[in-house]
Amino acid sequence: MIVVMRKDSTREDLEGVQRRIESHGLRVHLSQGVERTVVGVLGQIFDELKSELELLPGVLEVVRISKPYKLASREFKREDTIVKVGDVSIGSEELVVMAGPCAIEDNEQVLSTARLVKAAGAKILRGGAFKPRSSPYSFRGLGVQGLQLLAEARKETGLPVVTEVMAPEDVGMVAEYADILQIGTRNAQNFNLLDEVGKIKKPVLLKRGFSATYEEWLLAAEYVLSGGNSQVILCERGIRTFETATRFTIDLAAIPMIKSLSHLPVIADPSHSTGRANLVPPMTLAAVAAGAHGIIVDVHPNPAVAKCDGAQALTFDVFENMMSQVRAVARAVGKVPAGMTG
Amino acid sequence: MIVVMRKDSTREDLEGVQRRIESHGLRVHLSQGVERTVVGVLGQIFDELKSELELLPGVLEVVRISKPYKLASREFKREDTIVKVGDVSIGSEELVVMAGPCAIEDNEQVLSTARLVKAAGAKILRGGAFKPRSSPYSFRGLGVQGLQLLAEARKETGLPVVTEVMAPEDVGMVAEYADILQIGTRNAQNFNLLDEVGKIKKPVLLKRGFSATYEEWLLAAEYVLSGGNSQVILCERGIRTFETATRFTIDLAAIPMIKSLSHLPVIADPSHSTGRANLVPPMTLAAVAAGAHGIIVDVHPNPAVAKCDGAQALTFDVFENMMSQVRAVARAVGKVPAGMTG
Amino acid sequence: MIVVMRKDSTREDLEGVQRRIESHGLRVHLSQGVERTVVGVLGQIFDELKSELELLPGVLEVVRISKPYKLASREFKREDTIVKVGDVSIGSEELVVMAGPCAIEDNEQVLSTARLVKAAGAKILRGGAFKPRSSPYSFRGLGVQGLQLLAEARKETGLPVVTEVMAPEDVGMVAEYADILQIGTRNAQNFNLLDEVGKIKKPVLLKRGFSATYEEWLLAAEYVLSGGNSQVILCERGIRTFETATRFTIDLAAIPMIKSLSHLPVIADPSHSTGRANLVPPMTLAAVAAGAHGIIVDVHPNPAVAKCDGAQALTFDVFENMMSQVRAVARAVGKVPAGMTG
Amino acid sequence: MIVVMRKDSTREDLEGVQRRIESHGLRVHLSQGVERTVVGVLGQIFDELKSELELLPGVLEVVRISKPYKLASREFKREDTIVKVGDVSIGSEELVVMAGPCAIEDNEQVLSTARLVKAAGAKILRGGAFKPRSSPYSFRGLGVQGLQLLAEARKETGLPVVTEVMAPEDVGMVAEYADILQIGTRNAQNFNLLDEVGKIKKPVLLKRGFSATYEEWLLAAEYVLSGGNSQVILCERGIRTFETATRFTIDLAAIPMIKSLSHLPVIADPSHSTGRANLVPPMTLAAVAAGAHGIIVDVHPNPAVAKCDGAQALTFDVFENMMSQVRAVARAVGKVPAGMTG
Repeated sequence: MIVVMRKDSTREDLEGVQRRIESHGLRVHLSQGVERTVVGVLGQIFDELKSELELLPGVLEVVRISKPYKLASREFKREDTIVKVGDVSIGSEELVVMAGPCAIEDNEQVLSTARLVKAAGAKILRGGAFKPRSSPYSFRGLGVQGLQLLAEARKETGLPVVTEVMAPEDVGMVAEYADILQIGTRNAQNFNLLDEVGKIKKPVLLKRGFSATYEEWLLAAEYVLSGGNSQVILCERGIRTFETATRFTIDLAAIPMIKSLSHLPVIADPSHSTGRANLVPPMTLAAVAAGAHGIIVDVHPNPAVAKCDGAQALTFDVFENMMSQVRAVARAVGKVPAGMTG
Repeated sequence: MIVVMRKDSTREDLEGVQRRIESHGLRVHLSQGVERTVVGVLGQIFDELKSELELLPGVLEVVRISKPYKLASREFKREDTIVKVGDVSIGSEELVVMAGPCAIEDNEQVLSTARLVKAAGAKILRGGAFKPRSSPYSFRGLGVQGLQLLAEARKETGLPVVTEVMAPEDVGMVAEYADILQIGTRNAQNFNLLDEVGKIKKPVLLKRGFSATYEEWLLAAEYVLSGGNSQVILCERGIRTFETATRFTIDLAAIPMIKSLSHLPVIADPSHSTGRANLVPPMTLAAVAAGAHGIIVDVHPNPAVAKCDGAQALTFDVFENMMSQVRAVARAVGKVPAGMTG
Repeated sequence: MIVVMRKDSTREDLEGVQRRIESHGLRVHLSQGVERTVVGVLGQIFDELKSELELLPGVLEVVRISKPYKLASREFKREDTIVKVGDVSIGSEELVVMAGPCAIEDNEQVLSTARLVKAAGAKILRGGAFKPRSSPYSFRGLGVQGLQLLAEARKETGLPVVTEVMAPEDVGMVAEYADILQIGTRNAQNFNLLDEVGKIKKPVLLKRGFSATYEEWLLAAEYVLSGGNSQVILCERGIRTFETATRFTIDLAAIPMIKSLSHLPVIADPSHSTGRANLVPPMTLAAVAAGAHGIIVDVHPNPAVAKCDGAQALTFDVFENMMSQVRAVARAVGKVPAGMTG
Repeated sequence: MIVVMRKDSTREDLEGVQRRIESHGLRVHLSQGVERTVVGVLGQIFDELKSELELLPGVLEVVRISKPYKLASREFKREDTIVKVGDVSIGSEELVVMAGPCAIEDNEQVLSTARLVKAAGAKILRGGAFKPRSSPYSFRGLGVQGLQLLAEARKETGLPVVTEVMAPEDVGMVAEYADILQIGTRNAQNFNLLDEVGKIKKPVLLKRGFSATYEEWLLAAEYVLSGGNSQVILCERGIRTFETATRFTIDLAAIPMIKSLSHLPVIADPSHSTGRANLVPPMTLAAVAAGAHGIIVDVHPNPAVAKCDGAQALTFDVFENMMSQVRAVARAVGKVPAGMTG
């Protein structure tokens, strides 16, 4: 932490800053430049110190140097974290495709989709039983019944399943059915929920808050990691910007950026970020080329009658065609397209 | 709802759209312009229809006409909603000031602040017992003990209290202590929590999600209203933009805008929006001039050692000075500064 | 400037950084903390040094300490700059209202508006002769003829005029007619144009780029100041955010913030920021309460047939009513409403 | 254009709207729904009509249906526009790489870079002679001398050159040296400049304004097209968002989106969007996978001493390695990597 003094600060101002720092058992390193004086703070910094120092007379600004997340950082753990689910390794050189309907509607819908996406090379089945919806009047998911349908589809196809959990009190129950628990973008700073999934032993797919900085996103992961659960998969799913022609703006630079800041695996969701089926294949290929460890994508037997986000779901045909391009791009960037022959 | 056809759409495309609309028991109104054909949809529109129609061949775009919120809209209820708390009326011509520490730290801190803000004209005491924090390593509040300290301060000063609730399972307990339950910006789309506060009989202070549009904010209110709780106070608390010199960008145009869209009271939080104590007085005055029904502001006996957001808290002196300006501006715009003599 | 070393950086990395800094004639101040090593750079920093150092091995990040603008900064000049135009002082305790039509359409329109706004207390007449328009098919202004109509209105009413200049080659010509030259938001980083208005002796009204940070805005002012023209008036006119219900988001915290960072006067434009006439009066009052040195507002005899931005223009009646409230709020915050009796 | 009436609008309100529309020689199509009345406007709509109607009593909102750009739209011209420069076709199935230094510094720098990028497969040389810089104290380019150095490099290597023009009065002069004239992001709404490049016969590389919507970007292109110059290449170069860890947020969904809205070629600039050399290769590959017609990238013999934006420039080694991956990804998505053998 570094304290920059105003040009017109006095000798007393400076001594006040030094005394305050030393009162916390920290040490001071003084640097008197041509233009201004800068005070370095040495020792175990705590968060509240920043505003404490900023309010002292003569202080221009206080700059934090170290990142506020630790367990999630690449500096803390140099080697990539690999999350194993079934026979796939998320975070490795494998490219893992997760696919399925946005919301689970009925047995036939889930099963037919599960069989198709498996045949096309997907390794994990996605599907929502609890759906966060902006309007209270929209379809909010089948709940527990949806989880049961997911479990049946897993039994039949062998595909592990990922599904969203929305409330702290549901974590145990959802963990009974799911292989990966998803935290949605609107819960990315629901700290009670993050605490709760930090206590379980199953992988967590942590979507980026649609207005979360990289730092806030990694701090959300830090909640889970510091709770004792080290199996966190990060998922870029689009951020909110001034451009409204797409539902969100997919930030693909997040993929290499997060890989440099953190050891955690990072995947992309081209469906919820764009909100438009015709943009999903190009953004899927772009995410693979950018180095994503996986993608998660909405597929529906008949998007036009989907109960949730039909405009962004791929038909079976489009998904199959896309998967052959995914294999080609994955190989072009040195990835092993997991479970994809041909 | 209006369906705009592509210029190169065919007769069959148009008939397909008409048939689909009619299959839902809705009626069609055709409008063939010079440039293109537009199909109006008449009847009870449902949310999923939009993407259903967008996916049909020949369709350029589908424009929703009616607002997705109903109970929260000014069209549904023309007269202003007034929320009564103690002897103040939020939503009326009174200007209501809520003030107190960001986080409750100890008995002395709460009590001294409560006495001071009351003397200066505040009518409601704010204070956090459960604190949402970006980092798991920051102070997260005293929990139930904080609620008890708040209740003691109310007993002593007579000020009703507003405090945040973070988890659905805590709603009943927090409602036992609080006069107004606050939903924080990071929980503005925590739909389980919104459902839960919709079931109680106490006023809810609903902060705008820091990336929520007016529509999403009013839809969050719709969750509470449609649950049966009509006492919702909206609070503008700054949105996230590209400008990072302030913590958030306070959107004061939201105040007159929300007042035209909705009948609910709307107040402003100049502390959490700006994150800087020196900006709080001018933004408080600006919010009052813009027509806010109230303001909520952080005050701390000694901001430099505050355990949470000290950089934005006002000292007692600054708060007192500000309050005399608040009175003057309130009168200038025809407001009655509630409980403020002098 | 401060160089933060990676935790795993080597002795050689550190020596490399030191050598590079010293090769530019700068000095080094070393600070070895518990967690990491930080290198302070002492001497006359140049812009390119940041990326030069960031690319060296072992470097985590480089943090610039000093602001990149100098002449515009409050540290450079402590006293407020006051720009005199006619009999008003922009930047003083006077509140100066500038008003008039968005675009000049004809003699009758300008004259009737000029007379009305003068009678209501405005001290400067605004009006566009050269109009930047997003679409090439929109009305782009009367050009020189518009400047002549403005000059006639000034002759008749005595009001000084402010009007936009869009191209470097037009600066001399516009300066012949205008008392204040306006740089519009879309030209806020048109550096050739900024250079050109830096050479004249007339005040410049510099609108904030709608996506400019405070720093970029002050750097735009720095272009004009460093060219030799010290009469710069800054104007907040709304920034682009995710909220599209208003045309832009007016950032009123910019007013106190700019006043702390810079000595230049700062005014607000509630018309172009909101784009909606019903939001103009509350945002005008809010800007005054926030401490603006002035406001600039669109007024039109008949907004419904305005050739440019009619939706945001005030009618004469609304403007007159608003002005009496402006006087009241100005007095409430200790301002002298310039030229406004009654 | 569609006019939505308020629920409480009267018969007179509706008749007023109809009369106003018909007074402009337009026709009305009435649609009385269950919830509200909607008025369709038929005929040649003009821009100002929207605000004119919005101000009438009883009107809730006015929705524009047709896009404001015409010549740039895919509906106007169905086939892809292909811009021919030297022996490459931008907008075709070829993938065209443009590379070179951000700013031209001296003969040796330009020439060595030109030779290297040509050998590695680039088909066009980029280099800035006129540099827009946020600070007046930064290096602003060599001007005409830079253009001459570019021309010499073209003569020696045969590579066509692309370079930026910043002022209307420079267009003729820059066009004498350049094969493609670039309009930078800060001039994306410099309408005088757009008018001027609309009059020449050389291709224009039009960067997206860093806060421009797709619609505003295509309207900027419309300025050039409506001026008579049909050779416009669009370039996505990152938009400004709340995330500041990268310089801008590259919006790769813009590539397929623009291809669906317009017939113009679209390329990407991974250097200026990210501002960080380590993100350039993954974002280049992502842009190619997303379907870009080309990329433009900063390369410098020694980024650490570059006079402009060194932090984002690739070294020769990194560029060469990247190009072999570019070839692989281009082939994987069915592109022909122009002039790239091996």
